[in-house]
Amino acid sequence: MAEELLIRNVRPAGGAATDMLLRDGKIAAFGTAAASANAAVFDAAGRLMIPGLIEAHTHLDKSFWGMGWQRHTAGPALIDKIETERRNRRELGIDANRQSGRLVAQMVKMGTTHIRSHVDIDTETGIAGIEGVMAMRERLKGVIDVEIVAFGQSGLLIRPGTLELVDRAMALGAEVVGGLDPCAVDRDPKGHLDAIFGMAQKYGRPIDVHLHERGEMGAFSMDLILERVRALGMQGKVAISHAFCLGMPDVDHARRLIEELAKERIALVTTAPAASPAPSVMACLKAGVVIAGGSDGVRDSWNPYGMGDMLERATLVGLRNNFRRDEEMELALDVCTYQGAKMMGIADYGLDIGCDADLVILPGETLAEAIVERPADRTVVKRGRIVARHGELTAPIA
Amino acid sequence: MAEELLIRNVRPAGGAATDMLLRDGKIAAFGTAAASANAAVFDAAGRLMIPGLIEAHTHLDKSFWGMGWQRHTAGPALIDKIETERRNRRELGIDANRQSGRLVAQMVKMGTTHIRSHVDIDTETGIAGIEGVMAMRERLKGVIDVEIVAFGQSGLLIRPGTLELVDRAMALGAEVVGGLDPCAVDRDPKGHLDAIFGMAQKYGRPIDVHLHERGEMGAFSMDLILERVRALGMQGKVAISHAFCLGMPDVDHARRLIEELAKERIALVTTAPAASPAPSVMACLKAGVVIAGGSDGVRDSWNPYGMGDMLERATLVGLRNNFRRDEEMELALDVCTYQGAKMMGIADYGLDIGCDADLVILPGETLAEAIVERPADRTVVKRGRIVARHGELTAPIA
Repeated sequence: MAEELLIRNVRPAGGAATDMLLRDGKIAAFGTAAASANAAVFDAAGRLMIPGLIEAHTHLDKSFWGMGWQRHTAGPALIDKIETERRNRRELGIDANRQSGRLVAQMVKMGTTHIRSHVDIDTETGIAGIEGVMAMRERLKGVIDVEIVAFGQSGLLIRPGTLELVDRAMALGAEVVGGLDPCAVDRDPKGHLDAIFGMAQKYGRPIDVHLHERGEMGAFSMDLILERVRALGMQGKVAISHAFCLGMPDVDHARRLIEELAKERIALVTTAPAASPAPSVMACLKAGVVIAGGSDGVRDSWNPYGMGDMLERATLVGLRNNFRRDEEMELALDVCTYQGAKMMGIADYGLDIGCDADLVILPGETLAEAIVERPADRTVVKRGRIVARHGELTAPIA
Repeated sequence: MAEELLIRNVRPAGGAATDMLLRDGKIAAFGTAAASANAAVFDAAGRLMIPGLIEAHTHLDKSFWGMGWQRHTAGPALIDKIETERRNRRELGIDANRQSGRLVAQMVKMGTTHIRSHVDIDTETGIAGIEGVMAMRERLKGVIDVEIVAFGQSGLLIRPGTLELVDRAMALGAEVVGGLDPCAVDRDPKGHLDAIFGMAQKYGRPIDVHLHERGEMGAFSMDLILERVRALGMQGKVAISHAFCLGMPDVDHARRLIEELAKERIALVTTAPAASPAPSVMACLKAGVVIAGGSDGVRDSWNPYGMGDMLERATLVGLRNNFRRDEEMELALDVCTYQGAKMMGIADYGLDIGCDADLVILPGETLAEAIVERPADRTVVKRGRIVARHGELTAPIA
């Protein structure tokens, strides 16, 4: 018999209250058509509904979540953080399976239903992180969807042997090939990009490049990515995370790059950083560039902040982009929902009949209010089943 | 008999656990010396203690708090916001006494013990806002300290009659003379600044100037303020709020201005805006400039965001200034505590014997963790009395 859940008195996207029937993990009916004798019932009592939040850029494998407060000691440079992290991993014993599970538990409670996680690969720990996160997602099947990026955090070419490890990770089932600052880290942008595009071609998989490089250097790396997407016909298969260079002072240069990104269907992922230049969400959306949101690291040796909450991210996207009008604030939420789904190519996403029943039910008069208040009372539905009820997980995740 | 409260097992500033005796609104003793047979007892169960949070820049009189969600419709320019606000005030009926009380209730719950509030004065509503906020603070005596800035939000000179209203507000007991963008709003920087400095001299009161003006224009206005502080010997009596111009591209110019601010003991107040240039907290502290933190408007026609939470502000100060090391994050908290107290000239502030017992007790292993987690479980002590216990007010404020 079909598995059914009837959600009573809910306001999809903040609209009029209705009933909603979920059947076999899909949205099946609204209003009077939603009536069903066999369905379990959840009374939403007039709360809002949004589609499941999309965490489009995080690092599940190396969070300290649940390990007590770890003093943050890394210096300001990228390389300080990479070195500190490798030392922390040795000294603290960060188990990727355990730690990714702990952070995912928090993210599920906050309403995230899909995650793209970069997972570190290097010559010291090999692909232990990839194996750990894969074990976690096997454990948590049905509770969360996790997409894994095989990510050479310490560089691909400067640490010989890393590329072979990325190859093994892809063979094991990682979904995305990761890249990192082609100029700044590997000191060989052509070599780095040829390597990751070659890997992507070999496995028929998409690419996601961390691009922290700012200004003209970042723009140069972005140009090299654009060239390869054109040459290889990889439109719609490449994402650039951070893209700080698009916040460069030369706004005409940034605009030309954004137009090229739109043409080659390269998506962006932003954390909406307050302390870095960043792509303008409005400029990207107006140009037709998909721009998703991510937490980046949560409580790890890079970043002490974070609650694993993509509604908090929507607030930060709003603040960073000076979004104050309600319709602008809804765009900030869009970045953390629909835009993320587009970037990750998630089919059947949304609040329409036939969509996967991946949903968040939460108090709030309007979507804007939900973003500003970030209420703890969230009920989260994954494929038609309640995985968190009023802010508490329905089953332990550990 | 003395009124005593014994706080057991508390960790002041995240240090070692101790007992702490409060007597007649002051911190009286620590450790074994804190024992008292007559004291009421609060068991902090190992929680942290910080001094009361200082809200150094807000607008209590015009918040929509508790009025349901108000759609945000203002255009992007300063003048759009000023006009929208005046319309909202007419159409929504924003009572300053009621609304300031509602927002203060939230702020007290979040651990704020002192507020500097700018309060609008204009030729349409006169000094009704000032009277309303004064009535609120009379009602809430002992629960919160509120300092009032007589603030000509719509300009002083371009709306004749406003200056006379500011004069009446000062005569009624407003503590601070407010200024606003001397070039951009009144279009007469000399006239505007002469007016507010004259008013400050007349009443022997300090000044707090909203300075949104960016780049060279803001730097020019700041220069004119510096000249007047020097000429009138008003060192230590002037604060500049926002000071976006200090985030100007010409870093040498900004540095010279910061050095001059230090010399004339002009304090700054920042919201740590993610979408505007802003003063660097580290540069200011290193130069010896006091820099306090504020929420600015909370849920009003300028700003739809905000929980009235100065710990959230500490997070935003940290994110804006790229503070990731624990000692840097403690500086972000300093901005929302000790720096605010210095800016407002609050005597006897802190966690030492003899200080006013204005305190917040909250969970957290370290100060940095408290900033990142912003726990709802806060117990707030004002002058030795518990005004909020574990996140709930002990008496209704309305």
